[in-house]
Formats: sequence, structure tokens, C-alpha cells
Amino acid sequence: MKLTEIDTPAVLIDTDRVEANLWKFQAYADSHALTVRPHIKTHKLPRFAKRAMELGAIGITCQKLGEAEVMADAGLTDIFVPYNIIGKAKLERLAKLNERITISVTADNETAVRGYAETFAGRDKPLTVLVECDTGMGRCGVQSPEEAVILARLIKSSKGLTFAGFMTYPKTGSVEATEAFLAETEKLAIEAGLDPYIISNGGSPDMWRAHEVKSATEHRPGTYIYMDRFQVAKGAGTWNDCALTVLATVVSRPTEDRAIIDAGSKSLTSDTLGLDGFGRVVEYPDAVITSLSEEHGNIDLSACKDKPKVGDRIRIIPNHACVVSNLFDNVILISGNEVEEIAPVAARGRVD
Amino acid sequence: MKLTEIDTPAVLIDTDRVEANLWKFQAYADSHALTVRPHIKTHKLPRFAKRAMELGAIGITCQKLGEAEVMADAGLTDIFVPYNIIGKAKLERLAKLNERITISVTADNETAVRGYAETFAGRDKPLTVLVECDTGMGRCGVQSPEEAVILARLIKSSKGLTFAGFMTYPKTGSVEATEAFLAETEKLAIEAGLDPYIISNGGSPDMWRAHEVKSATEHRPGTYIYMDRFQVAKGAGTWNDCALTVLATVVSRPTEDRAIIDAGSKSLTSDTLGLDGFGRVVEYPDAVITSLSEEHGNIDLSACKDKPKVGDRIRIIPNHACVVSNLFDNVILISGNEVEEIAPVAARGRVD
Repeated sequence: MKLTEIDTPAVLIDTDRVEANLWKFQAYADSHALTVRPHIKTHKLPRFAKRAMELGAIGITCQKLGEAEVMADAGLTDIFVPYNIIGKAKLERLAKLNERITISVTADNETAVRGYAETFAGRDKPLTVLVECDTGMGRCGVQSPEEAVILARLIKSSKGLTFAGFMTYPKTGSVEATEAFLAETEKLAIEAGLDPYIISNGGSPDMWRAHEVKSATEHRPGTYIYMDRFQVAKGAGTWNDCALTVLATVVSRPTEDRAIIDAGSKSLTSDTLGLDGFGRVVEYPDAVITSLSEEHGNIDLSACKDKPKVGDRIRIIPNHACVVSNLFDNVILISGNEVEEIAPVAARGRVD
Repeated sequence: MKLTEIDTPAVLIDTDRVEANLWKFQAYADSHALTVRPHIKTHKLPRFAKRAMELGAIGITCQKLGEAEVMADAGLTDIFVPYNIIGKAKLERLAKLNERITISVTADNETAVRGYAETFAGRDKPLTVLVECDTGMGRCGVQSPEEAVILARLIKSSKGLTFAGFMTYPKTGSVEATEAFLAETEKLAIEAGLDPYIISNGGSPDMWRAHEVKSATEHRPGTYIYMDRFQVAKGAGTWNDCALTVLATVVSRPTEDRAIIDAGSKSLTSDTLGLDGFGRVVEYPDAVITSLSEEHGNIDLSACKDKPKVGDRIRIIPNHACVVSNLFDNVILISGNEVEEIAPVAARGRVD
């Protein structure tokens, strides 16, 4: 099947680039004795999770239990869910997963730890828990190494739980601060008689500096598999590394400088990640996607010498690849202009 | 089933408010002899499309053929797709739909009209086509009444096509400009011997002024069924009219003023529509949802007297209801705190 037979909008995944991206970071991590635990939120496809494992990953990361359930069903056996799992229904699901596979989670508060302890105290297999640290991101996480150690001790002293170490999702561009927080936390933990055998760092924007976070034992890159406009802006890769594009058709050319495409926020999302515009048009790099409605993308062609006409098809590198994967039931796996397969996005829409 | 048994994040639809919202606009339109053709993009549920019909709507609007196919399968028989349908695959689908139900589409360019004409010239049942006018939105649409009439004449002269009139999706707050464009277009069309028997206006923000667009024969409101933070900001409704909320759990309270919830951009989307923040927390109206990651919502509680604790559940009125519907496989229909039904979002993710 040729790419020309695919209707628009559609998400294309260049599998040669996927392979190269997976391989490249694994080789980098291997050379620094850092283990890799890729985040599947970017692709949500069991096949790519498995391929990363074949290339040397030690396990995978999922953000929600629902994603972990899909991946476990597909045969993945070591999954980290760096999230506070709260509430009876989710704790029961977590317990079931823990019986089937190796699963680990995080906590950044006592309520979460007490929930884990109540659920796992009477069970044969303990739950592995890491403490989430806020090393600058300003999202979840304990606020200081001291707090991290207090929570770690609570985990260690709780029946049914195994304390494994510390985890962070760092702010982009904060390598030094991340290392400072984690190194101090590790030191205090060891002084307190704890054994933090995993120190898990994450993110793609700074992934080529992952080895500078010397206390980290593992890295959890996500977007690295597809790359996107934000990652290129941050220098994590080049346009030629971008494996995910949205194929769209020009449906209107109302003025000399305006094109409207059939991909809007329902295909590209409104994520800007601080960038201007909503993606890069591969064939018209001077074009600017100025605004999106749900089913319309508005493109300013004023800087373009050549301009597309109604019916022309273009490819867009989105600002943020992960959120695009969540919008499509299927993605089109391609090699060059050949369609290899239409693949269902198995873990799409797993919100809980 | 009680609402407390629903896990988070989840989309709740207050069916009493839905009923009131549908009824209220239909009554308004009836009093102004304006027909109503609701846009289903907001809910994507056949049941609400049918309910609007029972209350007096003359048909429905879908933005993509895929949505129209779902609605036709569910028994809807009069569907307007205000979009340039481009390309062989889609034109074939359009032809099939036209055999089953009453369908109409738009064109704003000659390529689109030629595509329709080539597809429908040899068929028994003609395709009904309206000309899309850009009355200020700056998206699709011909740029002047003169252009509109030229395209209308091309449609009228094309075998297989029936010219029905003009359509616009107006810029919010541009009632006068919309009326000026449409009135002039209608006048020129009649002078040219055309019969524009439908003049279709749309949008919820200015829907209570729809009667001021005197040339319009029908209105296509979408968000009116659920309302949202943007509609309230524009004065189209009040908080008590908002039928869609996202139920979320507080999973972390890292600092005195910060709460993290389990609803991020994968539940609320990054749509701001020009507003500050990413939604209104019903129980904590002074809280500000400052940022979203895919699975985390970051809330600033500094202005709140009372503050939620880890495990508490909150409800959020999103900035934009329509895009939220597209993210969930199911929505929870509620009346008060009782769950009436868990309903699959039948037309979710129909991107083409």
C-alpha cells in the first residue's frame, strides 16, 4: 500500500526513524552505565515497548494504571507507574497487576503510602515504592531531601511495601539542580540506613545530559522515540529524527496567504509548549500554523515562495508528539512512502 | 449507582441541564422563526442529537464525514457537513451517505465544487451545496459577497448539484458584520436569479443575538448543549448551565498552596480560548488551574480559604467542552448525584 492511498488527517510513523531513535539513546545510556526505562505515553503501542526491551531497556514506564494494564496484557512484564495511586478502585487494580507482573509506583505523600500499605499488608508479594522528588518541576514530589527520607522511612517500615529509591521528573534545563537534589537525598537516605537502589530520572529534552545526573541509575525518556518540534527546539534532535508526522490535506485557500487544512486541534492538539505556532510544515518550512479550530488548521503562507493548492497534501511535525498519539485510534506505520501497517493505538485514551 | 462509585478522571454530563439548554435555545429560535440545526461536535452522542430533533431541530450539523456516518447509522436523517469535502475517498463516502439520508455540504472554492460535480453528475440524487462565507472569522470561506455569488452560480450550473444557499461560522462578537455580509450576499444572489433558501449561521457565544442576523434562516449552535467556561465568559450562560464537568481526584499536595489532580491535558486539553487557566474548580472557585501536563493538573490554592486534601474529589468546568468529549471513550450521564448511565461517545475520534 502506498502512502497516497491513506486518507487525511492521519498520523504517520516512520519506523526507520523510530528504530534509530531507540537505538541511539540505548547506546548512549549503555556507554554511561545508565539503565533505560522508556515511557510509553508517547506511542502507546506494545510493539514499540517490546522493541525498546529487545534493544536493552530494563522495563517500561506508564503514567496511568490503564496504560500499564494494556501493556501487561501485551506481554510487558516490568512496569513503573510514577504516580500516586489513590482510591480503593485503583489500589485493587494495582494489586491485581502486582500479582501478574513486576510493578512499581511512587508516593510523595503519607496518604498515598498508607493506601499502599493497607492494600498490600496482607499479601504475599510486596509492592515496590519509590519516593517522588520535586527537583524543580513544580508538579508532584516532596520538596526537600529531608522530606524524601522521612517518606522513604515510612515506606520501609510499612508491611507489604518495599522501598526501592527515588524518582523525579525534572524541569527542562535543570540538570545541575536535579543532580544536587538527588545526590543529597541519596546521601541522607544511606545515612538513615536505607537502600535506594533505584534513582530514576526522566525526560527527553535533556536526555543527552542524563549522565551528568550522576546519582541517577536509570533514565525514562518518552518523546525520544518520535521526537517533535519542541524536542528539536530544545536541541534533543533534528527535523530528520522526527518520526511522527500528521498527514493533512489543504481544503481551502481563501486568500493569497492563507491555507486551511483538515487537521485542527483534534489532530494536532492546542499544546504549544511555549512555541509560536502549532507545528512545522515539512514541505513548506516557512509556513506558520497560526491557529487551530477542532477540524481546521489555519496556515499563514506569506513567507512561502511556493504555495500549496486545494487538494495538496502536507505533513506536519507537531509541537508535542505524545498528545497526538492519544487522539487517533490508529497510526500508519511507514517506511519511506510505503505503508507497512495500520496499527491500533492500544493504550490510547486510558485516562485512569 | 452513586457518583461516588465512579473512578477518576471521568466526564460527567448533567442530563437535566442538557435538557434545559436544548429547550431554552429551541424556544428562543422558535420565537424568532429561526430554525435550529445543532452541531453534534460538542457531545458526539446520537441520543442528544435525537433529543434536539424531538424538541424541534430540523436536522443536525457534523464537522466531518466520519461523524455524519456515525449519526446516520444511529438513525439521524438530515445532516449538514459545513466543510469542503476533498479527495476521491471522501467523495465516495459522501455519495454513499447521500443515498441513505438527506445530506448537504459546503464549498468555498472551485476545486471543491468540481469534485462534487464529478462525483454526482451521473447520479439520481443531486448533492445539496451551500457556499461558505468568511464573514470575519478568518478561516474558510469566500472573501466577499461577489465571490460568493460567482461560486453559487458555478454550483447551480453544475450537473448533479443543487445550490441551497450560504453558510458562515462567524467570529465571536461580530453580529453586525455577519449580517452585513450575508444580507449583501443574499441580495446579490437573488439579483443573479439564484434562490438561496438556506442562510445558515452558527456559534454559541452570540446565540442569543442570532435573531439580529436577520438574513439567516437557521442557526447551528454547538457548545450550547453543555456550555463551558468560555461560553460563561462570553455571557452565553451561567455556571449553573454548565452540564459537562470533569471529575478529578487530588493526588498530591506538595506545598501549602499547590494541589495536583489526576486530570491533565489528556482530560481537559490545552485549549485556553484566550482565558487564563485551564478550567473552573466548582468546589473551589478561587482555585486557579495554572498548568497541565498530560496526566497532571497543577492547581494554585493560594486564594482559597479551604483547601482540598489528598484523596478529595473535585469537579472542573473546562474552558472548552467540545474537545473534552473527544478525549473520553465514555461519559457518565448523571442526574444530581445519581449515575443514570455510562454512555459510549459514539462519534469520538472521527477525524476524517
